[in-house]
Amino acid sequence: MSVLIKNGYCINSQKEGYFDVLIEGNRIKTIDNNIKIETDYVIDAKECLVMPTFCNAHTHLAMSLFRGLADDLELMEWLTKHIFPAEAKYVSADMVYKCSKLSMLEAIRSGTSCFLDMYFFEEKVAEAAIEVGMRGVVTEGIIDFPTPDCSDAKEAIEKTKSLKEEFKNEPLIRVGFGPHSTYTLSFDSLKMVADALEEDDVVHIHVNESSSEIEAVLKDKGKRPIDVLIDIGLLSRNTFMAHCVKSSDKDIEKMKAYNANVINVPQSNFKLASGIAPIEKMINKGVNVFIGTDGSASNNNLDMIEEFRTSSLVQKVEFGQKAMDAKTTLKIASNFNGLFDDVGFLKEGNVADIVVMSLNDLEAVPIYNPYSFVVYAANSRAVRDVIINGKVILKDREFVCIDENRVKFEVKELAKKLGAL
Amino acid sequence: MSVLIKNGYCINSQKEGYFDVLIEGNRIKTIDNNIKIETDYVIDAKECLVMPTFCNAHTHLAMSLFRGLADDLELMEWLTKHIFPAEAKYVSADMVYKCSKLSMLEAIRSGTSCFLDMYFFEEKVAEAAIEVGMRGVVTEGIIDFPTPDCSDAKEAIEKTKSLKEEFKNEPLIRVGFGPHSTYTLSFDSLKMVADALEEDDVVHIHVNESSSEIEAVLKDKGKRPIDVLIDIGLLSRNTFMAHCVKSSDKDIEKMKAYNANVINVPQSNFKLASGIAPIEKMINKGVNVFIGTDGSASNNNLDMIEEFRTSSLVQKVEFGQKAMDAKTTLKIASNFNGLFDDVGFLKEGNVADIVVMSLNDLEAVPIYNPYSFVVYAANSRAVRDVIINGKVILKDREFVCIDENRVKFEVKELAKKLGAL
Repeated sequence: MSVLIKNGYCINSQKEGYFDVLIEGNRIKTIDNNIKIETDYVIDAKECLVMPTFCNAHTHLAMSLFRGLADDLELMEWLTKHIFPAEAKYVSADMVYKCSKLSMLEAIRSGTSCFLDMYFFEEKVAEAAIEVGMRGVVTEGIIDFPTPDCSDAKEAIEKTKSLKEEFKNEPLIRVGFGPHSTYTLSFDSLKMVADALEEDDVVHIHVNESSSEIEAVLKDKGKRPIDVLIDIGLLSRNTFMAHCVKSSDKDIEKMKAYNANVINVPQSNFKLASGIAPIEKMINKGVNVFIGTDGSASNNNLDMIEEFRTSSLVQKVEFGQKAMDAKTTLKIASNFNGLFDDVGFLKEGNVADIVVMSLNDLEAVPIYNPYSFVVYAANSRAVRDVIINGKVILKDREFVCIDENRVKFEVKELAKKLGAL
Repeated sequence: MSVLIKNGYCINSQKEGYFDVLIEGNRIKTIDNNIKIETDYVIDAKECLVMPTFCNAHTHLAMSLFRGLADDLELMEWLTKHIFPAEAKYVSADMVYKCSKLSMLEAIRSGTSCFLDMYFFEEKVAEAAIEVGMRGVVTEGIIDFPTPDCSDAKEAIEKTKSLKEEFKNEPLIRVGFGPHSTYTLSFDSLKMVADALEEDDVVHIHVNESSSEIEAVLKDKGKRPIDVLIDIGLLSRNTFMAHCVKSSDKDIEKMKAYNANVINVPQSNFKLASGIAPIEKMINKGVNVFIGTDGSASNNNLDMIEEFRTSSLVQKVEFGQKAMDAKTTLKIASNFNGLFDDVGFLKEGNVADIVVMSLNDLEAVPIYNPYSFVVYAANSRAVRDVIINGKVILKDREFVCIDENRVKFEVKELAKKLGAL
């Protein structure tokens, strides 16, 4: 397929300003003025921004079923009295497939082309992503108690290996390892994960989410989560650590020394009262930082625009007005480094994951600085077209090949059993 | 005019659940099942929420001209090098009229029916509000240096008095006093404001925005801003204090003792690195709390849904997961107490300021608790219809009697002089 995006204002791009973007196959062929060529698709991007899509680097897609089921509760009450029982009762292959698909559409509606997911029945997440045409890293949750599809950590590790084999030829899908955390896995189980890793395998894990987590790990394993990961050989450039709210300066130094990756998840950290992660400090130390939404049970949506705006605004409270400026924030929102190659920057030869945002709404008047518009003023209403891997997925705010109403209907039917309106 | 809203799910209402709402003139006549009556307008609210509109209790509407002109800067650099010079050069009656109108439409698009504004040429803000059909309290900025339309505080006070006279018969408009702050007005000027007040006059003022403000007032006047207001007789049930970020426990006790009002403005407080206001503490002490966006130069939009979500989420970081729960937050977002009577709650006999929010988007699946949806998941895409004072202003996301494109065009023309795209 070939696509020509005409007359948009390109940002996060090798050429900034009004340019046409020509896509052939899954890659950007040319960024230039007045490209004249026959293509399968022409997108008129007049009065629009053209830029890289966003990468939602931490989520639990299928948890959309539990969105709003239990809010405003203490973390342990929320988990043990509401989320865990609901998961035990309602999580199934069918539920994961349907609810993940809903979340994928939601994510795309806010300009997202890629997710890093951790949950159960991850083969169904991969199937849904292939069907939707979305890019994703699926990581089966590995944990020291029975999950809806695995009886223990060993089984989840074996399952991960077989998923790797199953999806090895799918260009949009990567399979990674999802050890839940250093407080829900024994030293032996974590070691098993480390032993199972091949060179490029992504490791997706919750780290330093709350003070009580760190206390629990100190008590149980005698050191902080980061040091546990180092000991076991699980801290590397392939490690993607969600939350990292309670990271000490020493933790941050170690993250950098091992080139590990941090995913900022501010709305979930606020909702569960975990705190504000020292992201500006990490950026200044050269740590590779991402943004994620977490699942819809603790956020309660997958809107990446809200998430990177909150990221930027709240860093300023702790680190001053210049922290996470608009350009830096948008670069971090479009960070795919280590997950997929050549995505996240508009450049000839790079993969075409592109979002077209309308400048036709009231919030877009006036525009002095397009980065400022996207980070501080716009919302997902402005997302008009989304291209993933060279393919038009959302066009004029409508999904091209997916029946959005059916996806919504199927989740509503499931949710009726839980008492939804 | 009469309006019938059919089959919506009513919240913040004397009857919660699926009901019809009948509006006659500017008031809610009946909330009941199966109302059958001929009306001028019928709004089909199937798969929608019906609820009170939001009150944006602190803004500078005309500053939309400066949206995104200067971001990510230290407060004093931002003010003295960018905002003050731009205001000196570009603020005029024409600019205030056009730019305020843009902001009003933007506010309505996020479900807002009322503003509390402080700026210059406030007669133009009132004119624009009457034209748009929006409710507002206009307060001419009173400050100890020349403004674009007054040479000193005395003149601004005189102007306020004449505005009161001019707009006294406009049901949608109230004129209040806008002393800028205790650090930009001398004791004598503040006293002049106090002397000019009549019993029901609203006083709109910036209080405890930053540590440096409090230091400056302590140095200049020998006491904290709250104590200055008390001394002068400016702290009362009619005092509306924006920001209040750096309020001490004693300040909060005094706010409550005098029944003064606090407006939380979280996004602006974050962007300018002022901090997190202790709102949950104020709520618990019984202080009357509102939410506002501030102007678009420091926010950078007038989206009340973003603002109350941020309010709720960030309070939890400081005060735990149960702070500002969804129901409390929505009540605060719809707080009009002391500004306009009988607005902010759906009740027979009350004034009809009503927003209809669609439940048809992906974020609205599933719904277990409609308050949770509005506060934690929805965004302004969901705002479908807005009724202000019984009149339909926004219908199916289109403005009924205002040419949105013309409003945008006029501000774009002004902004070109400042270098807008």
